[in-house]
Amino acid sequence: MTPYELIEYEKASPEVRAVYDDIRATRQTDFINNFWKALANDPALLARTWNLAKTTMAPGALDPLTKEMVYVAISATNQCPYCIASHSAGARAKGMTPAMFAELMAVVGLANMTNALAGAFRVPVDEAFL
Amino acid sequence: MTPYELIEYEKASPEVRAVYDDIRATRQTDFINNFWKALANDPALLARTWNLAKTTMAPGALDPLTKEMVYVAISATNQCPYCIASHSAGARAKGMTPAMFAELMAVVGLANMTNALAGAFRVPVDEAFL
Amino acid sequence: MTPYELIEYEKASPEVRAVYDDIRATRQTDFINNFWKALANDPALLARTWNLAKTTMAPGALDPLTKEMVYVAISATNQCPYCIASHSAGARAKGMTPAMFAELMAVVGLANMTNALAGAFRVPVDEAFL
Amino acid sequence: MTPYELIEYEKASPEVRAVYDDIRATRQTDFINNFWKALANDPALLARTWNLAKTTMAPGALDPLTKEMVYVAISATNQCPYCIASHSAGARAKGMTPAMFAELMAVVGLANMTNALAGAFRVPVDEAFL
Amino acid sequence: MTPYELIEYEKASPEVRAVYDDIRATRQTDFINNFWKALANDPALLARTWNLAKTTMAPGALDPLTKEMVYVAISATNQCPYCIASHSAGARAKGMTPAMFAELMAVVGLANMTNALAGAFRVPVDEAFL
Amino acid sequence: MTPYELIEYEKASPEVRAVYDDIRATRQTDFINNFWKALANDPALLARTWNLAKTTMAPGALDPLTKEMVYVAISATNQCPYCIASHSAGARAKGMTPAMFAELMAVVGLANMTNALAGAFRVPVDEAFL
Repeated sequence: MTPYELIEYEKASPEVRAVYDDIRATRQTDFINNFWKALANDPALLARTWNLAKTTMAPGALDPLTKEMVYVAISATNQCPYCIASHSAGARAKGMTPAMFAELMAVVGLANMTNALAGAFRVPVDEAFL
Repeated sequence: MTPYELIEYEKASPEVRAVYDDIRATRQTDFINNFWKALANDPALLARTWNLAKTTMAPGALDPLTKEMVYVAISATNQCPYCIASHSAGARAKGMTPAMFAELMAVVGLANMTNALAGAFRVPVDEAFL
Repeated sequence: MTPYELIEYEKASPEVRAVYDDIRATRQTDFINNFWKALANDPALLARTWNLAKTTMAPGALDPLTKEMVYVAISATNQCPYCIASHSAGARAKGMTPAMFAELMAVVGLANMTNALAGAFRVPVDEAFL
Repeated sequence: MTPYELIEYEKASPEVRAVYDDIRATRQTDFINNFWKALANDPALLARTWNLAKTTMAPGALDPLTKEMVYVAISATNQCPYCIASHSAGARAKGMTPAMFAELMAVVGLANMTNALAGAFRVPVDEAFL
Repeated sequence: MTPYELIEYEKASPEVRAVYDDIRATRQTDFINNFWKALANDPALLARTWNLAKTTMAPGALDPLTKEMVYVAISATNQCPYCIASHSAGARAKGMTPAMFAELMAVVGLANMTNALAGAFRVPVDEAFL
Repeated sequence: MTPYELIEYEKASPEVRAVYDDIRATRQTDFINNFWKALANDPALLARTWNLAKTTMAPGALDPLTKEMVYVAISATNQCPYCIASHSAGARAKGMTPAMFAELMAVVGLANMTNALAGAFRVPVDEAFL
């Protein structure tokens, strides 16, 4: 449960509606997920965050599926249940297969393991990596 | 500085040399980076970790470059300087361009931002994501 | 659900009651939140943690509202749902308005973003900051 | 050491110079700290991050000093050495006294302690906090 | 709720059953906890993770109870609810008393506190610790 | 480098000296490590933190070596270089052998791996663990 009202389109201010309209147009779906409905409690925060997300997740030097999988990896590392759920769904919608998810998970697990080991062993950075 | 002796090939036991030989053969380079030389202080830990890394990072449903970029993203999230350095180098060696790195960073920044926001707003998971 | 019995005042030992009495007197309310009722499973841990919290959160060089907002920011960063809930309520009770919460969230998001970026770019500390 | 060239004003492109000029004007100082010089390796990432920081850290419902102290608290929680250094300096420049820093640290320590305790005890959220 | 089917023994493939049989034999119980049933969606990931866990958690230079308590400490630090629940149960099954849990929690709290303080104060490592 | 003066015994106030004396008496050594010398910039924070550490790390239901190893595990998870260095030294001084350190590292690696996996797979907590 969220203590924040989830702002539905029908009850939203024109400022919030403009963002929702852009989310719908960009994603080509009517669905607005709860993250945006919660941020809508502060229209300026909503607009700024959406603009950043829209710019960042657009196709570019990296394809949208890769970006979504990176998002899932970070969300798992940060233990953010909402983000894991929403970006796993996003990655699946963009073409992530079960086999890709399993390999992604293997990398997530390995990286979190060796991150801790490298820290604990205080491994000095190789000159080749500077 | 590491307080652990970095075990060089010349001073390594046969057990450690076998792992180093496999690292060299798998990566097709003579270079052994310090992470493995530190783990070599415990040959069993070295062997197990290398086998896991070798299996996990091999080409499969995800290509090796994508895997390395995911590794960089997690290492940045975890603030592991050694891992950031070594896997950024790895990703560059596998073809990550400066433009790809910049877009990766944008996703890393955005994901860490929205992970905290989703937690703070206690956003309930949408039914569509269950 | 917690597997730990939440120790209610009526069933508490004199040692635990003494802490509960002090919480009530300090906060000027009869309400004891679940965090303390869970810690009460170990009276020594309860007493030590409460004494630290009481001392730390008292007015001083920083006002209580600022302290609560810092608490919310850290709890969001650590993805601790209970702590986000309890300290958001605490901050609101001390005067945090929706506008203040939204600006706090903006800082929380930005800081988590740039923390990861600074790590990933391995930015050397400026001499001016040493 | 950073492997990224720190882009100095003199060698910067017009696009990067425009951001540097805005940083200088906004902060009323000639000093550009290394974080921005590193991000300048990707002008678009630099511009977007600076615009977000400028907007977020401006005076509003929260004063700039409170915002900087929240930034320090998050940076300490995330173990980001660069961010701790730069935002501690920023907070001092905005008026944080040694006594305020000490109290901030006390809250940072306490919050990180109780975040872990609340998680470990699986404390259920009080109805009053929903 | 998990969106991943929890693979029960009866519906499992021979490859998955072999792992489940080994879990049962190693732990001397019929109970398979949900973590493994979720990983079973990818049999290779299941087998690899179980083999690593089996090897790592076996008695050796450290006894199994100490290992489980370390696991609880890390899970609390990472805010992983499932891991806190499962490894707390594991530690209790191996002999952790309420008094031991309370002392473990005290160390978990203290370590998370001083980790943040050491970072924030940028404490230089003593020569004696290099 | 720390920007905080490390307060040496000779230059310390009576209040700080009293803590240093207690550290020396408790640990039966003249050595005061830098963490305390940095905290000494705020005598009240020093005294409170030391009292908490002294109480928490004393022998009890858990032995001091186990406590130090838990500390190392958390410090590695949090990527705190100072804490890894100081508590690894502490654990060695209390009897941690290289074989014990290697097994501790194996648990640290495994726990960080499976914490992320359990989060990503959104594994529901087994009834047996509630």
